[in-house]
Amino acid sequence: MSAPTGDIGLIGLAVMGQNLILNMNDKGYNVVAYNRTTSKVDDFLANQAKGTKVQGAHSIQELVAKLKRPRKIILLVKAGPAVDSFISQLEPYLEKGDIIIDGGNSHYPDSIRRTKELEAKGLLFVGSGVSGGEEGARYGPSLMPGGSTAAWPAIKEIFQATSAHVNGEPCCDWVGETGSGHYVKMVHNGIEYGDMQLIAEAYDILKRGLGLDEREIAEIFEKWNKGVLDSFLIEITANILKYNDDDGVPLVTKILDQAGQKGTGKWTAIAALDAGTAVTLIGEAVFARCLSAIKDERVRASKVIAGPQKEPFRGDKQQFIDDLEQALYASKLISYTQGFILMRETAKEMNWNLNYAGIARMWRGGCIIKSVFLGDITSAYEKNAQLESLLFDSFFNKAVHKAQPGWRRIIAQAVLWGIATPAFSTALAFFDGYRSEIVPANIIQAQRDYFGAHTFRVLPGKENARLKKGEDIHVNWTGRGGNVSASTYSA
Amino acid sequence: MSAPTGDIGLIGLAVMGQNLILNMNDKGYNVVAYNRTTSKVDDFLANQAKGTKVQGAHSIQELVAKLKRPRKIILLVKAGPAVDSFISQLEPYLEKGDIIIDGGNSHYPDSIRRTKELEAKGLLFVGSGVSGGEEGARYGPSLMPGGSTAAWPAIKEIFQATSAHVNGEPCCDWVGETGSGHYVKMVHNGIEYGDMQLIAEAYDILKRGLGLDEREIAEIFEKWNKGVLDSFLIEITANILKYNDDDGVPLVTKILDQAGQKGTGKWTAIAALDAGTAVTLIGEAVFARCLSAIKDERVRASKVIAGPQKEPFRGDKQQFIDDLEQALYASKLISYTQGFILMRETAKEMNWNLNYAGIARMWRGGCIIKSVFLGDITSAYEKNAQLESLLFDSFFNKAVHKAQPGWRRIIAQAVLWGIATPAFSTALAFFDGYRSEIVPANIIQAQRDYFGAHTFRVLPGKENARLKKGEDIHVNWTGRGGNVSASTYSA
Repeated sequence: MSAPTGDIGLIGLAVMGQNLILNMNDKGYNVVAYNRTTSKVDDFLANQAKGTKVQGAHSIQELVAKLKRPRKIILLVKAGPAVDSFISQLEPYLEKGDIIIDGGNSHYPDSIRRTKELEAKGLLFVGSGVSGGEEGARYGPSLMPGGSTAAWPAIKEIFQATSAHVNGEPCCDWVGETGSGHYVKMVHNGIEYGDMQLIAEAYDILKRGLGLDEREIAEIFEKWNKGVLDSFLIEITANILKYNDDDGVPLVTKILDQAGQKGTGKWTAIAALDAGTAVTLIGEAVFARCLSAIKDERVRASKVIAGPQKEPFRGDKQQFIDDLEQALYASKLISYTQGFILMRETAKEMNWNLNYAGIARMWRGGCIIKSVFLGDITSAYEKNAQLESLLFDSFFNKAVHKAQPGWRRIIAQAVLWGIATPAFSTALAFFDGYRSEIVPANIIQAQRDYFGAHTFRVLPGKENARLKKGEDIHVNWTGRGGNVSASTYSA
Repeated sequence: MSAPTGDIGLIGLAVMGQNLILNMNDKGYNVVAYNRTTSKVDDFLANQAKGTKVQGAHSIQELVAKLKRPRKIILLVKAGPAVDSFISQLEPYLEKGDIIIDGGNSHYPDSIRRTKELEAKGLLFVGSGVSGGEEGARYGPSLMPGGSTAAWPAIKEIFQATSAHVNGEPCCDWVGETGSGHYVKMVHNGIEYGDMQLIAEAYDILKRGLGLDEREIAEIFEKWNKGVLDSFLIEITANILKYNDDDGVPLVTKILDQAGQKGTGKWTAIAALDAGTAVTLIGEAVFARCLSAIKDERVRASKVIAGPQKEPFRGDKQQFIDDLEQALYASKLISYTQGFILMRETAKEMNWNLNYAGIARMWRGGCIIKSVFLGDITSAYEKNAQLESLLFDSFFNKAVHKAQPGWRRIIAQAVLWGIATPAFSTALAFFDGYRSEIVPANIIQAQRDYFGAHTFRVLPGKENARLKKGEDIHVNWTGRGGNVSASTYSA
């Protein structure tokens, strides 16, 4: 048997896998393709991969045999048991130092587990976020690899060559330990949910609020795409709005308003709840998809619940559109602020060393959320790696102050119109809470102590003989009840 | 040894346990008290339980020996391993048909598991929500028992006697199978988080918006407590606002604005995400507590981020206060609507037969969220057990239409003032989404198909040769890319 010539193997020939193979082939790498249903391998070689250097394999054994050492095998299969199954099938053929890379949408706790399990067997594991959809995979995705640190030197060249580039810099760097690659990808996807919801709300306000048609709205998005909102999602939204069905009617107006989801937005919201961080915008974006899903119930409700009388808009339309641009920008800034706070808190808990500038750089190109904005985030963290949050950065601080008046006007108007803006509204609520030295949680603490003896602490500067600093204080609010505080609620 | 005389045993002598024992004793039951640290048993008998019929036990064996058959033992211990540990300690002494009742804040999946495990051993398990805090436990809590249905006849009398009563009806009924008691209690707690957050926001608007002091706000709450908002939480908030520190300053103004949480609100939000239901108000209430927790960060942010110039309020104050009452009422209605939708969807998934009128009846008295409002919810489900949601009930439908104009004015004003209203705002956003035949999720579906070939469906009434009903449609939006749709994303 001749010496193996494959640089990297890939398992899973659905759209992402096929395109990633063609991309790596374009960059000069020799890729070996395998798929459980092996007819897909032949089909791929005879069609999309025709004329390339791509090799096919019809068994796991053949796949491994065709790879140079250390073997690098990317799995692009459905997250869950399929990943574990392929890992088990690969293990018998692999040797110490070989690398299994999971490029699917795996949940980060699985990647933490797999890193540990494979390292215990002398193998290396990388859980890598791959973002960018069809197009990204084909022409340069954002790659977010994390896991066995020893694997990075062996895969760095091929990963960075394959990834998108912005200003000559690859949108791929080493994220960190164990499950951090998939964690960061998860947060990316959550942020993507948020960005999409914000755009949907802006569209709704322009359509139902201002009464514009899809062509006019497309032009607004095209204009926005030349300013601070310059991004892939704004660009494709303009293209979508301009895409007409055969009868000349915008196709988007014929699409069922039920948004699907694959779970990573939900995971981000749950991770935020578990970490105790207020990632409200992603939460609202996920819930907005849930609400969209109960279409039949909404249709029935629409027949029995009336909104406000719709007043025609009498203000300055251009001013309103400019306000909306600022509202979208500021809300987006809050969403990213929340996402980076989530990563900060999780890194503390997991003992990961995350490079926030690097993360923003990976997201700046190649992926769904790519934008000029992410270049600004990169700069903010390059200027100060210890930045507490984006709102403390001078560039963004100035931007949010500028955006604030228009942002408020838009939400107030949408509220009066009866147009739902869950993401815009929660962003502003977070902003107003975050910048408040005092929030009304004192009421909640008093209530909890009143009915459950849960105790409270004293506000700094208000200490006295009864209210001592650092003490858990219980007050007998009613004159009845006991002196037992809830902290003793254990047997 | 004489025949056992104990009607029921209770393990765990913290505040809830002590008070529940005294309550059951008052109702004529003979209770046997046990605690792991047995000095607490002696202490309790010598003090709080002095002069009662309460018996003490200094070991699990003694506790069981003092109980009549079938034994009924309530655990009021910290949720988690302590519950399993006591169950294991009890098992050797119990006989077929004996009943272990977990009255702690256990997570419902644990109660599902424990029901199955104990039933397999011939024992019965009840996971019962107990709500009402110190006061409720002492004078009549809301009890929400579910689990082994065979246990209900044996515990019904003592449970219903011990629970609160409203209009002669006990705030306790059988909830349903396996973990449904703790599930319903969890939703109750989530709703409690929401109610508390809404009150905190109303306080904040009155204080920072209208500039009222605690005495004036207390009077408003007292007035509200005579109307549609009549409830325990409104009542205690008025009392809290009137409670002054020794120097005459309202104590609440000296309480640190960092709200604690014990996890059940978070569980509800996660359960909602898992069930794919838009329980946004509880989500925002949990996140508001998370935001309150990062006090130091908020203080630093408050020094570098300015809000809007505060304009003095020039409108009609009484009208504004009346609007606020309606905003609070409508937002609360949305929160309960969301909670009941969550229970409806979960019951479908779990094959539980939940009695919604019964659930509202259990919550109507004895617990933290007790209110006149829950009487109206009881009536709504009594009128129509198959009610799709509260907003379809004629009483609430009328109420929300009445509340709507003031609700919108309050949120618009708070947005312009810079006062955070995450719960009010999300309630209105849900309302406006729920009553919308069309939401802008078509944009999201188009984006998902554009970048990820995720496909979409056609809006009813817009079908044509290209856009067929019930088909997953993929469009090649760019003219580039392949024809592989993401539904084939598997190896």
